[in-house]
Amino acid sequence: MGAKARFSNPTELVDAALAGDRLALARILTAVENRTPVAEAALRRLYPMAGKAHLVGITGPPGSGKSTLVSALIAAVRAAGRPIAVVAVDPSSPITGGALLGDRVRMQAHTSDRDVFIRSMAARGHAGGLASTSTAAATVLDAVGFDLVLLETVGTGQAEVEVAAAADTTVVLEAPEMGDEVQAIKAGLLEVADIVVVNKGDRPGAQRTASQLRAMLVAVGRVGVRSTGRARAAPASAERPKPKEPQVLVTTATTGGGVPELLESLDRHRARGREATDSPARLARAEAQVWAILADRLQADLHRAATREATAATMREVAAHRLDPFAAADRLLAELSS
Amino acid sequence: MGAKARFSNPTELVDAALAGDRLALARILTAVENRTPVAEAALRRLYPMAGKAHLVGITGPPGSGKSTLVSALIAAVRAAGRPIAVVAVDPSSPITGGALLGDRVRMQAHTSDRDVFIRSMAARGHAGGLASTSTAAATVLDAVGFDLVLLETVGTGQAEVEVAAAADTTVVLEAPEMGDEVQAIKAGLLEVADIVVVNKGDRPGAQRTASQLRAMLVAVGRVGVRSTGRARAAPASAERPKPKEPQVLVTTATTGGGVPELLESLDRHRARGREATDSPARLARAEAQVWAILADRLQADLHRAATREATAATMREVAAHRLDPFAAADRLLAELSS
Repeated sequence: MGAKARFSNPTELVDAALAGDRLALARILTAVENRTPVAEAALRRLYPMAGKAHLVGITGPPGSGKSTLVSALIAAVRAAGRPIAVVAVDPSSPITGGALLGDRVRMQAHTSDRDVFIRSMAARGHAGGLASTSTAAATVLDAVGFDLVLLETVGTGQAEVEVAAAADTTVVLEAPEMGDEVQAIKAGLLEVADIVVVNKGDRPGAQRTASQLRAMLVAVGRVGVRSTGRARAAPASAERPKPKEPQVLVTTATTGGGVPELLESLDRHRARGREATDSPARLARAEAQVWAILADRLQADLHRAATREATAATMREVAAHRLDPFAAADRLLAELSS
Repeated sequence: MGAKARFSNPTELVDAALAGDRLALARILTAVENRTPVAEAALRRLYPMAGKAHLVGITGPPGSGKSTLVSALIAAVRAAGRPIAVVAVDPSSPITGGALLGDRVRMQAHTSDRDVFIRSMAARGHAGGLASTSTAAATVLDAVGFDLVLLETVGTGQAEVEVAAAADTTVVLEAPEMGDEVQAIKAGLLEVADIVVVNKGDRPGAQRTASQLRAMLVAVGRVGVRSTGRARAAPASAERPKPKEPQVLVTTATTGGGVPELLESLDRHRARGREATDSPARLARAEAQVWAILADRLQADLHRAATREATAATMREVAAHRLDPFAAADRLLAELSS
């Protein structure tokens, strides 16, 4: 019998994952990605065990060397004897795309190490649910003992920014001298950054780009406006205050240059975040998850209602103009809540 | 005092529109477009008066001469002494784009005629609501006495197909010899077509394109699969059966050639549709409108709940991992329905 037969119910699956079974862990994450009932059962049990890990969002434009940096970070974390998990989110493609797959291959160097867990998650459903799905995945990894979880996103759209911004610490990557078009993207990304990294530090313009970014950050801080889509999925969220001047670091991921300093900076930011009892990032994550669950439930209710004969009869009355659609909606809502 | 002061409440506005006031009509349509409470009040009253007009969807790729044909159709309908309304839907742009605006200018020839009413509607919110918004606009025009309402869409995406398919009669326009890429689009569009029009009939390839299209239609009919997104917003909808072999007509909109034949074909299709007591198109329209209203209401409920202190307290418990997000969703749903 194959692996599928090994776990007869969600309880066994969660027990196995908690005992260190990586296959069970992978299956829970697949359930989370597909939002199945197994995911709900697993998350209900694992959620109270989570909340200890440091969630780090890493985002930045293609070509900034994000995956190489993530790989270098993994090496630095492992050299310190700490476990690490990576959730690589690709909102643009229903199936993991070529670029991401290539990146994963580069990370294969770490796959024989059981204290490194790397998982790609493609976008299912609408982009709004992506932040909650990747957060739920991070919760699972947190609960089974990964102390540091990286949420890596591909691209620089709104969804990517939201996923990265859902983390405790948000790292925005830039490559030196990426031209005017990228400058425009930077402004939005910089507003969510806790740490800005100029990668490819061995290129001529790296230090100059770092200086320009520091100047931009001062300008953003001076304007004082936080108009990003942070926590858009979470209506009640308080605005998440960021330290006025995020640190700008220069790394050369290919050689590992600057990576220990980045890891130190992450740990410092984590320690600072822990002082707050009600971290705004945690609150935003909580809200995104709850609203995603509510949206799923209401949609399921509607679909159940849609299959009933009484609903079909109501629709026929509307089609015949004997009942207006608002009165029909009133009637269906009354039926749903009864 | 400006026009705004003339109507102090929705009842007066609807009374005025029913009495033939075009400004009042335009204001109701703006309310429909923006989904305001005035729209709900107006539609609740107007809906029972509607259901008599013939809704004709017209769609097709850019460059097929759609607006010129619509203009020629208006002329033919007016020559027969009948009133006509046009709702031009542009799902791609939040503000009416240049191309559409240019088209409207071409239609200005009809604007001094009060039995011609032309209205552009831009997409607000998600594309899913577009079909219900344009259908609601058609309902208003129907109720105030327009016996023939054209729903013209720009582009050939899913949203456009859905809008066109929500009509009693769907006309799909093609230009002669539009190349391989357009052929791929055609297949999807052809599945929703009741009447296919090859416009620019004075071009060399027109008759040949018409023959090719007739052959494609036979092929589509032979396969017998209706896999379009028709009525996707309406879960309970029965599949809308189409006559096996839609008519293929050739027009030359610039000269009016073939336009009287198109109008005859529309009237024949209308007469056929009237034989059915429960038209599947009407059922699909009813469902799309009811589900759009339900989705709006549930979203409003959630946003109201999000502003309450009890909700904020629940979110803080989730953020502190003392409550899992599913239990939080259970609690919020219980509060919503109490």
